[in-house]
Amino acid sequence: MEKKSIPDIVVGRLPLYLRSIQRMAQEGRKVTSSQELGERLGISAAQIRKDLSQFGEFGKQGTGYQINYLINQLSKILHVDRIWDIAIVGAGDVGNAVVRYQGFANRGFRISMIFDNDPAKIGTQMGDFIVRNTANLIEDIREQNVKVAMIAVPANQGQKVADQLIKAGVKAILNYAPISLYVPADVYVQYIDPAIHLQRMTYYLD
Amino acid sequence: MEKKSIPDIVVGRLPLYLRSIQRMAQEGRKVTSSQELGERLGISAAQIRKDLSQFGEFGKQGTGYQINYLINQLSKILHVDRIWDIAIVGAGDVGNAVVRYQGFANRGFRISMIFDNDPAKIGTQMGDFIVRNTANLIEDIREQNVKVAMIAVPANQGQKVADQLIKAGVKAILNYAPISLYVPADVYVQYIDPAIHLQRMTYYLD
Repeated sequence: MEKKSIPDIVVGRLPLYLRSIQRMAQEGRKVTSSQELGERLGISAAQIRKDLSQFGEFGKQGTGYQINYLINQLSKILHVDRIWDIAIVGAGDVGNAVVRYQGFANRGFRISMIFDNDPAKIGTQMGDFIVRNTANLIEDIREQNVKVAMIAVPANQGQKVADQLIKAGVKAILNYAPISLYVPADVYVQYIDPAIHLQRMTYYLD
Repeated sequence: MEKKSIPDIVVGRLPLYLRSIQRMAQEGRKVTSSQELGERLGISAAQIRKDLSQFGEFGKQGTGYQINYLINQLSKILHVDRIWDIAIVGAGDVGNAVVRYQGFANRGFRISMIFDNDPAKIGTQMGDFIVRNTANLIEDIREQNVKVAMIAVPANQGQKVADQLIKAGVKAILNYAPISLYVPADVYVQYIDPAIHLQRMTYYLD
């Protein structure tokens, strides 16, 4: 599989396909079609067939997709046929929500540690974890070989934390701090900023 | 301005431009360039100039952009030159984080109410608000003419809540429930699902 040849926009749709068919599986369903998946997602059936065909043959004309098989294949492609440990930096409200979030189960992730630099928070319980000292971040992350992290600190601390995470060997960062990060080419960043999402909608409202 | 002629992907970049130049303004800066903005955002200067040129003339060749002027113009274009009230549905961990979130200030939004259907939560304090009963959602939202909402309920309640919000007149929904929503054509939805963002990155990791 030649990774570089798949457009990132196609890669971005695969997790949506996986989430939808996992939900169908929870509903007890065994088979689906590109038509049904398209209706659920607001994406054309042709687009879905074209996207999936870039990775192999997952269904037969007329008989649709076996849901469990497609879940396994998409999980492999997205590398969530394993469990990735996640380090969270920032034990504020956002960190607290993420550390308690139940939505990672069966999706390839589990929280494994949370850090803060506030002496009042270090050592306290948050969810199932004891808040660690950000001063030990690089050492702790290296020791457990964590490759995925979330930044949930204020904007003015975001870049400094990103630099530490990268030094510790983290390769994928989900950034909740409302700033753009500078990272090397081999580190991936995704952003969650509710105001950005909201402004993208209010553009269309009068 | 012919709205339909601007591609949604261009619209999606405008909030990023606005956030970056607002941050420059906070740093005391007066003028910027498409080059500098591009470096901050990892977007080419040519792309930024092309995007902005679709909405008018915001800078002069050689002198760059006046930051305050560009903030005002982008705020008008995105309709965040006003304050939008937001209703949150779901007073769990995510609702709690959002209701306390400080990142909406100066970005066009303020939380105005939060709902839950759990009798143990209704009537309790969360952030600056008393949790309202979801049974009164349609009435309360209509009365205050709220057009923007966030869904922070479990997946299996997401569509039902969306239907109620739409009935109440909401036109823009930020959905934290990990499901795709069915909405009419005049209602906008954006999604925040951390597992989706993470999977999009693990695809690229070994």
